Formats: sequence, structure tokens, C-alpha cells
Amino acid sequence: MDPLEDLFTFLRFPSISADSQFRNEVEACAEWLCHRLTQAGLEAHRLVTPGFPVVVARNQHRPDRKTVLIYGHYDVQPVDPLALWDSLPFEPVVKGNKIYARGATDNKGQILAHILGVEQALREKGDLPVNVVFVIEGEEEVGSGHLGQVLTDHRQALGADIVAVSDTGMVAPGIPTFTYGLRGIFCLELRLQGPAVDLHSGIFGGSVANPATVLSRMLSALHDAHGRVAVPGFYDDVKPLEDWERTLWAQLPLTDELWLRTTGAKQLSGEEGFSTLERVWARPTAEINGLASGYQGEGSKTIVPSRAVAKLSFRLVPNQDPEKIRRQVTDFLRRLCPESVSMDTLSQHEGKPYLVRPDSSYGRAAQRALERTFQKPVAFIREGGSIPITQTFKDVLGTDTLLLGLALPDCKAHSPNENFLLENFYAGIRLNQNLLEELAHVT
Amino acid sequence: MDPLEDLFTFLRFPSISADSQFRNEVEACAEWLCHRLTQAGLEAHRLVTPGFPVVVARNQHRPDRKTVLIYGHYDVQPVDPLALWDSLPFEPVVKGNKIYARGATDNKGQILAHILGVEQALREKGDLPVNVVFVIEGEEEVGSGHLGQVLTDHRQALGADIVAVSDTGMVAPGIPTFTYGLRGIFCLELRLQGPAVDLHSGIFGGSVANPATVLSRMLSALHDAHGRVAVPGFYDDVKPLEDWERTLWAQLPLTDELWLRTTGAKQLSGEEGFSTLERVWARPTAEINGLASGYQGEGSKTIVPSRAVAKLSFRLVPNQDPEKIRRQVTDFLRRLCPESVSMDTLSQHEGKPYLVRPDSSYGRAAQRALERTFQKPVAFIREGGSIPITQTFKDVLGTDTLLLGLALPDCKAHSPNENFLLENFYAGIRLNQNLLEELAHVT
Repeated sequence: MDPLEDLFTFLRFPSISADSQFRNEVEACAEWLCHRLTQAGLEAHRLVTPGFPVVVARNQHRPDRKTVLIYGHYDVQPVDPLALWDSLPFEPVVKGNKIYARGATDNKGQILAHILGVEQALREKGDLPVNVVFVIEGEEEVGSGHLGQVLTDHRQALGADIVAVSDTGMVAPGIPTFTYGLRGIFCLELRLQGPAVDLHSGIFGGSVANPATVLSRMLSALHDAHGRVAVPGFYDDVKPLEDWERTLWAQLPLTDELWLRTTGAKQLSGEEGFSTLERVWARPTAEINGLASGYQGEGSKTIVPSRAVAKLSFRLVPNQDPEKIRRQVTDFLRRLCPESVSMDTLSQHEGKPYLVRPDSSYGRAAQRALERTFQKPVAFIREGGSIPITQTFKDVLGTDTLLLGLALPDCKAHSPNENFLLENFYAGIRLNQNLLEELAHVT
Repeated sequence: MDPLEDLFTFLRFPSISADSQFRNEVEACAEWLCHRLTQAGLEAHRLVTPGFPVVVARNQHRPDRKTVLIYGHYDVQPVDPLALWDSLPFEPVVKGNKIYARGATDNKGQILAHILGVEQALREKGDLPVNVVFVIEGEEEVGSGHLGQVLTDHRQALGADIVAVSDTGMVAPGIPTFTYGLRGIFCLELRLQGPAVDLHSGIFGGSVANPATVLSRMLSALHDAHGRVAVPGFYDDVKPLEDWERTLWAQLPLTDELWLRTTGAKQLSGEEGFSTLERVWARPTAEINGLASGYQGEGSKTIVPSRAVAKLSFRLVPNQDPEKIRRQVTDFLRRLCPESVSMDTLSQHEGKPYLVRPDSSYGRAAQRALERTFQKPVAFIREGGSIPITQTFKDVLGTDTLLLGLALPDCKAHSPNENFLLENFYAGIRLNQNLLEELAHVT
């Protein structure tokens, strides 16, 4: 069977974990995945959680071999704004050398390459060089709220010598990339309530606090004039960049010009004193992910809105602690909020930042697998995204994680027209096989 | 026929002029109104405009009588948030001594009372004491964009000695109220564009300007720490309050406690140095009517949004000029907008503020009609709302406007659960008759 056909099937499930109206589709995706893993020659089942199931699969384990846990996720981000997609997000299409669909890169394409690599090896050689455990969850895009408990409950069965994750990026097509650090995250919804209902802005305007105005003032205080987050204590635990990191990163083929083209921004901007890569890989941020207040329809509606809401997320770097930052941010917002409106915060998902030594024996094995697959020297990077579960693997299983991602800078993960380079899909299948062989020989 | 049945029929039309999907319903409302005016014994027709028609109706005019133009509007505000209505906005219901529906007070209830007053007088006496011209438009809630041209084109046919408008308020039930001033308005949509599409806030966050953050910073600059609008030159033309106004208003039964209860706000706030009534009747404002950016659905979506939009409106007072303020505001916003995002403004409706001398002969006649109708001394107020067309009547027809409104402070115009006191509906019918009799005797 053409590997692409499997990818098409996987991508057609609208497995959006953030939106409860897609609950059935997320479940159906888990069911298909479990079936597909069984078909690949693995023993597969779903572990029920209060949220979406974790799909687990393993080959026949032998005690004299290394055990590799391969982690991925079958859930995807929401798709709006739908109008900006050139083709429907859940009707994958191949155009040029790419496949376009929500989840193509993040993470369905990458995790499926691992599955197909294992299937192929099993078919061709009858066995794998290592014990493999797939752990594929359905809540990564909403913070992996139940995976920690699953790992804790099944610590014995899911124990491994090393974890491998393909959910990170390559610096450019054809350049194998080893990611040794990730940012953490903490999300918060800020809700302000002014008058009991939307008021006529003529009859009442000027006499009561406008919650949208208050929200703007509060949010404007999040950053100082130098692009730094102005929450007191926010930078206290930030680990400074090492000189070797700044040097290596400055040599990467990720130029500001490419970054500008990829983002489509008018110009790059951010915290003073840092390069673009330093800003996104090693510096924390405060971002507004969404704003909502009052009338948003066509034309005008002259009201003082009753409510104003902001969705906020904070990207964290080693050694910031999400719990500590949450307290700092909440205190900061509470101090900023005037008496004239009511404030409420809804804490959303969070995850710790991650940093590993790139020169461990497993790290070196992974780097050899990358070089064999792409026939090029490996680039060493950190990443700006968050895979909070890497820290959970460390905390619960005591296991380090290898980040061997295949996402390209213009893959548009989380954006309209998400895509995956077809050659990376096939490279992922080879990488899986090279990786398992190299890890088998680690002493 | 029960006057209430006519009101029910009128209110059932969802004649929302701001939303193009209700186009047919607005037109149908105009058609019904025209038919109803004919039924009342008037010669009625619709004047076509590039927007919605203006319904015009007149009795048999005689050159030896005063001519009174009665203005109103058959369009209504949008209804969202629909979830906050206790009953459906276009299925009017009577509960207690009030009728609930969108448009009940603003303006269908009030203009229908004038029509029914004229119909009753014609039926009982066979004629009216004055020449009457009804001018009832369908674009008041979107800025009366075409009425000025209609007045200009039909200056001869629509010429009048005085204009009467019932689209303002009473300070309390049973207290006849003469409004001698109105605020003007100018509306603007501010649109910022950052990256070309919504970006993954992990991969890109920290390296490009977030348009929602930029918007917050720009909007936070709209006011200074004293609650004053910070746009340079904004107050240059503001006519200061007279001592007699401050004295009279301080004696009105519109207490801050009542204001708090009516708005449901936690506390009152606004420009320092002014009372609540002074703030809403005689001081200009800058209000955010709506905010929209990024993800607004359930849960979180960790993006740097591509766009951020704010709907703004500025209430203006004598002698501020909307055109001048528009230039000042647009320049101000443009200076605030950093190079890193693109800014665009969409100008929406505007209207001049209005102020008349309360002691003119027509004003005194109107005050006598109010006293006869309610058997109480008249309260003299200004209002915070905008009826830009009052200034147009002055500019095009050279005619002053009498503002004789029946809206109560808790009528919830522009808000969910808009309502109209039934006794004010019947009082409006009597007021129309008293008013036409008093105006007939002005020399």
C-alpha cells in the first residue's frame, strides 16, 4: 500500500481536541490509529482517560534489548480562520512536493512515518533491533492534561531507556536537526466584566468604565519599551544563553530575510539585545492569542460593552517554572485591574521548558541516525515551541527525550495551509529505521 | 383597533439596518409603515435612496397654518448578544407595565405614538391644527447617511417651521423632559495587520509584532490618567458647561445610585472634575465598542494573530466638529502605530452635536404641551446620545428641532431586553395632540 494513502486517511479525521464539538471525530481517529498499529504488526490498545484515549502499541519485547518509547499525538489544532485556507483543512491534497492539511506536519505526518518505518522493518526483517513502545496521545494541543497520569499508572509497562519524538523542526530542507531544548508554556484567559449588559454609548458613555478600554490598558502593561515582559520577577529564573549557542545559531541558514518571508510580517521585532533565533528559542514571551469584546459584526454598534476577554499565553525558557510564572502574572494583572470592573482568570494548559545535554550517548546515536538519513552534518538547535510531555517523561519515567523533528520553517503548523514536504515524510520512515538501529548499539 | 396591536406588528419587523442580511426585512418594515400612514388618513409614500427608503406622509396642507415636521426612524439596532434576552427581540411581549422588544423605545414605540395621535385627531375632528409632515427614515442607527440628500432634494416639499422628534429621554417616569442639547458622534474601525497569517506562537512568538499587543498599546493611549481623551486638540472646541446647567442638573432625580443600578456597573467612573450627568451630557468620550483578534473559541489556541480590529466611537459635544476630530484621531492613531504592523482605518458614520436655546417661542410651546400631558413641571436636560439629523434639519431646512422624548433611563435601548413603558406609549399619543395644538398658536 502507498504510504501516502495512509497519510490521507489519517489527515481526514478532524481530530481537534480544543473544540468539544469534534469529540466524536477525535475518538474515531484514535480507533483508526489503534487499528492501523495492529495492522503494522504491533500489539495495540487504547488507554482510557477522562479526556481522549492514549493509543499504545508495542512489538514483542525481549529483555536483552534497549527499549525505545516513540511519542506522538493524533490531535490537531483548530482550523479557523477557515477562509484563509486554499483547500479544506481535512481534505488533504498534494500540490507540488507538499501535502496540505491540518496536522500534515503537526503531528500526523511525522508520527505516521515512525509507524510505517517500524512496519516496513518488521515486514522485511521479521523483527526490530530494539523494543518499541508507541505512546500516541490525543490531547497534546490542549496541554497533555492526562498523559502524566497515564505514564504514572503504567510506569512499568511504558518504561523505556530513551524517548524519541518527531514533533520539532529542521532548520532547512535536507539539513538534519537535533533539538536539545524547548520552551515551556502557560496559558490564561483574562475576563473583565464592566456593566451588567452592553450599554448605549450615548446614554451611558463616559460614566462607567469600558471593560475593553480597561483590558487594553492592562494588556499594554505586559511589555516595557524594550520588548521585555514587564511582569515583576518574570526573568528571575531565566538561564542565560551560553556563548557556544549564540555562536552556533548565528551560523545557521535561518536568516532574518527568510524569517520575514515565512511570517509575512512587515519587519521583525522583539526583545532588545537578542537575535531572532535567540528571541524564539531562548527568551520567554507574553503573547495575546485572542481578543473579544462587544460588537464585531458588520458596520458599527455604539455600545459600551459589558465584557472583554483576552486569551494569553506565555512561552517559558529554562529554568522558569510555569506555576511560579502563573502566580506572578495573575498577581500582576490583579494589581493592574481597577476597582471599576470585575476580573476573572481561567487558567489553561501549562508545561515546563526542557533542556538536555546534546552529547549524551543516546544523543550521539540519534545524531548518527540523522546523518545517515540525510547525508549531511547535524545542526544543533533549541526550539520555541512547547512539548511539555518531555519534562513529564523525565519526571515520571526518568527518561530523556530525543527530539528529531521534520517540520520545516514554512510548514504553517497551527496556521491556515499547514503542509508537510513529501520527501520529509519518506525521510521520516528511513530515519525511524536508522534511529532504532543506532539506539540498539548504545552501550 | 387597539393601539398596542399596531405596536406589536411594527416591532415584529427585524429592521436591523447595520446588518445586510436583514435588508429585506428593513424594506418590508418601510412598506408596512407607508401603508399604515395611509390608513391613518395621510398621503404617504416612500422616497428611494441608495440605502433604505425614507417614508414621508402629510395631511392636507393649508398655507395659513404652521407646518410641523415629525421625524423618527423605523430601523433598529442589532440584537446580539441574543443569549442575554429574556424573550426574543422580535417577538414583543407585555410583562407588567412594559412592552419588551428591540425598537420598543428606540424608536418604533415613540414614532408610532405620534402617528396614532394624528390618526385619532383626524378621526375625531376631521382635521389637524397644523400642517404635518412625517419623515421616518430607515438608517438612523447607521448614521442617517442618505437623509441629508433627501432633505436637500425635497427641500420645498419637506420645508417646515419646526421639527419635532421623540427619540430622547425622560429623567424619570411621569416627569416631562425637554432636551435642548445632544452629543455628536464619529465612528471608526481600526484594523491592524501583523504577520500574513496566524502564526504558531512557539515557533515564531517573540520575533514579530503581535497586532493584538500593538492594538492594546494604541488603545491604552486614548485616555490619560484623569479619564480625559488624550488625542491632541480633542478639547479645543468644547463649549464649557454654563453654571445654570450644572445647578439645574444637580437637582434632577437622576442620582448616582440610580445610575449604578441601571448600568449594573461596579462603580461609576469617568473624566475627573465632572458629575455623572455632566460626563454623559456635556463631555466628549472615546469608547471602544468592539474588539476582535485571533482565537476566540473554546479553550486555547497558541498563535500570534495576523489581525486585530477595534471598533471605536467618539461622542462629541458642542462645538466639536466630527470632521476635525476624525482628522485628529486618525493622525493620533497613525503616530501611535509602530512600523512593525500595517494600519488601516475605516470611517463609519458621524454626526454633529446639537444645542438649541430652550426659551424660543417654539420651545416654550413644546414645554406647555409637555406640562399639559404630564401635569408636572418640565425638566431641562441635554442628552448623551446622538441624533445627527437635528443638525442636518438646521443646515438644510434652516429649522430648529424640539426634542420631546419618552425613553426612560432603564429602557435598555441598544441593549438586550429593550422595553417601553406602556403609559408612555399612551402619553405619547396625547403629547402629539397637545403639541400640535400648542404649536398652532405660536406667533
